[in-house]
Amino acid sequence: MAKIKSGQNLTKKDTIVSTAALLFREKGYAASSMRDLAEKVGVEAASLYNHIKSKSEILQDICFTVANRFITQLEKVEGSKDSVIDKIETILRFHIHEMIHHYEEVYVSDREWKHLEEPYLTNFQSLRKSYRKRLAAIIDEGVRNKELKDIDAPTAVLIMLHAVSGIESWHRSIQKIDADELEKNMVVIMVEGLKK
Amino acid sequence: MAKIKSGQNLTKKDTIVSTAALLFREKGYAASSMRDLAEKVGVEAASLYNHIKSKSEILQDICFTVANRFITQLEKVEGSKDSVIDKIETILRFHIHEMIHHYEEVYVSDREWKHLEEPYLTNFQSLRKSYRKRLAAIIDEGVRNKELKDIDAPTAVLIMLHAVSGIESWHRSIQKIDADELEKNMVVIMVEGLKK
Repeated sequence: MAKIKSGQNLTKKDTIVSTAALLFREKGYAASSMRDLAEKVGVEAASLYNHIKSKSEILQDICFTVANRFITQLEKVEGSKDSVIDKIETILRFHIHEMIHHYEEVYVSDREWKHLEEPYLTNFQSLRKSYRKRLAAIIDEGVRNKELKDIDAPTAVLIMLHAVSGIESWHRSIQKIDADELEKNMVVIMVEGLKK
Repeated sequence: MAKIKSGQNLTKKDTIVSTAALLFREKGYAASSMRDLAEKVGVEAASLYNHIKSKSEILQDICFTVANRFITQLEKVEGSKDSVIDKIETILRFHIHEMIHHYEEVYVSDREWKHLEEPYLTNFQSLRKSYRKRLAAIIDEGVRNKELKDIDAPTAVLIMLHAVSGIESWHRSIQKIDADELEKNMVVIMVEGLKK
């Protein structure tokens, strides 16, 4: 089951969105129907519409909520006085945490965003692009100040982001190390790989 | 266009399979029809059947040809007297080359194998699993003999394989560094990250 916020603050809409994230990850957005969603939530399809307008609205909600979390975190890191190495470690750990603890939503926002409708599609695409550029700018700063090896920043971003998305296989594996060990190992390999 | 073997050794079947790999990557296997394929090859749909039995046979051909290349290379590395670091570098460079120069086929075998029919599906799955195990065994050897950091081998495999599959974004980007630079950067980051 998707990790759902617990307690009294959980609205019906939150439940619908979390359940939808799980459904979209399992079946893909295109193949998921509102009927499937109603069944998973345990309500009549018609009653979903008291809380949300459309399947497409749910996808927007998932994608932009995740994007906001990532951008907020990036801004905090950009504004800090940490070394580049520490900045990268903070960002890497944040990505890993998100992939572990908000797996369904992060997976859907990373894989299914192509199904967003305009104007959200173009907007989301430019958020993604600018996020990668800002990450690359941090790495470039580390190359310039000699904290990092003399590497191509976009390639380092590509490696970081794709390595983290590999946590998908971790979720699927039957025998797996625990989440803290996974995080520790990823940080050791990736951060040391970048360090000069 | 897919990279196609050139010259007189190129059979009609080779052309069909290469073109299919391109089509399956672009549209997905499920959504690709034999009619689409015929159009891309530039022949009548009926004439495809002089060379191949079915869409499913083409997918088998792609997946198992790629798998054989990877396994053959892995066996060569396993049998060598190289240090673990050199073994890993050789394997990593091989993966990168494959993702750069045989992109369509490698992408399809990595993403679309789930559409294989039995008994090929089960067979392919166990090839994938055993490949990852053998890679992990090499890394474990390096942990034991202190060439590598004290890392969890399956996590290192996950990072390596997913980072390399990130070359997909490289193919899609408009501004990109050249293939040799990409390879050099990936090797520096990944191999140094594993080294003790």
